[in-house]
Amino acid sequence: VIAAAAAGLFHSGLLAGKRVMITAGPTREALDPVRFLSNHSSGKMGYALAEAAIAAGARTTLVSGPVTLPIPEHAQYHPVESAAEMLETCLRLVSECDIFIACAAVADYRPEQVQGDKIKKNDAEMLLKLVRNPDIVSAVAAAEPRPFTVGFAAETRDLLAYARDKMQRKGLDMIIANDVSDQGIGFNSEENEVTIVCGQTEHALPRASKTIIARQIIEAIANSSGK
Amino acid sequence: VIAAAAAGLFHSGLLAGKRVMITAGPTREALDPVRFLSNHSSGKMGYALAEAAIAAGARTTLVSGPVTLPIPEHAQYHPVESAAEMLETCLRLVSECDIFIACAAVADYRPEQVQGDKIKKNDAEMLLKLVRNPDIVSAVAAAEPRPFTVGFAAETRDLLAYARDKMQRKGLDMIIANDVSDQGIGFNSEENEVTIVCGQTEHALPRASKTIIARQIIEAIANSSGK
Repeated sequence: VIAAAAAGLFHSGLLAGKRVMITAGPTREALDPVRFLSNHSSGKMGYALAEAAIAAGARTTLVSGPVTLPIPEHAQYHPVESAAEMLETCLRLVSECDIFIACAAVADYRPEQVQGDKIKKNDAEMLLKLVRNPDIVSAVAAAEPRPFTVGFAAETRDLLAYARDKMQRKGLDMIIANDVSDQGIGFNSEENEVTIVCGQTEHALPRASKTIIARQIIEAIANSSGK
Repeated sequence: VIAAAAAGLFHSGLLAGKRVMITAGPTREALDPVRFLSNHSSGKMGYALAEAAIAAGARTTLVSGPVTLPIPEHAQYHPVESAAEMLETCLRLVSECDIFIACAAVADYRPEQVQGDKIKKNDAEMLLKLVRNPDIVSAVAAAEPRPFTVGFAAETRDLLAYARDKMQRKGLDMIIANDVSDQGIGFNSEENEVTIVCGQTEHALPRASKTIIARQIIEAIANSSGK
């Protein structure tokens, strides 16, 4: 009933005249020309958010890591591979956006060195030195002028505690908390179940398709960012 | 002209009554519930080989890592994620096959430990300890009774030297050498350009679609394995 209501209530015009930038999918961090570190993000949630933002009337920019989804119609599409490329693209476009939603599952670490040739496997063991990737959502939240900035927290435990900490630490306006330990929702599934955290309020959305969840998030953003 | 001839010459019956097992795609080696190490293999070459083997009349088993290709009709399909799973599946089915083609881009290394929870990113650097994965094509080539065993060598330099060394070291009957430093061919492209190495002979195939290359490889295997 709630999902149906959410779908029914959704209408264009909620974000008319607004410019929204959304990141989606995983990033890939090269070890050498053939190997990479990545994660199981399918991009479905970010692409659903882009569809919902477009339906709500926003001019929508989608900065996407490698996924196998069709590009949403009317999106300004910017494909990227690594976190460094994603950061560069977001910072280049941030001054043209009012709302930023960091939905991509950016790799936290990348190999310190990218080998030009394929690494030969001569040893029984190998130590791979990883260094922290740039923090894209923090960089965008710190931009001048800054957009209304929304992050995601995908965790396997202590979900809301980690999410609140992340929101404060990174200077976000809103965070969407997502328990990825449940196999039925999250990364590769069609459904999701999230809690929208904004200021002191928490709003738990019941499990629903990513399309419905995306519309509810866009509605919450429209309500909170308009203040 | 050569590609057209190869396509024209290809006919069913070349492998009638034979049982072929093919591995395809990348493997994914988990760091934790969300992160993994993988590579850029699209699975196209392995799937084209499966199509060609089926067209040649073979009963064809396809052991495939995660790819986004349609499953070939009439293939016995076994999806896997990690190298360990791929090895287990191949060894379970090896006694039922006459010809084995190891086309998968198996990750050479996997993280020593798989974390149950998502790794927290507290440090500026992280050392990831990797250990060697099992060598699937060597294990199959050492099985009793053993199938006619074909490997692939994807290299960025010294292609044929590495390929011959790999063939001898692993006890293969044939190896397909593939220069992946050329962006126009190999992992994610529709085309390929390989050299078939079998015994003392080397047979370079001109660049062609993976469908045509696959048929030429299947023809070479049919000719060499029937002896």
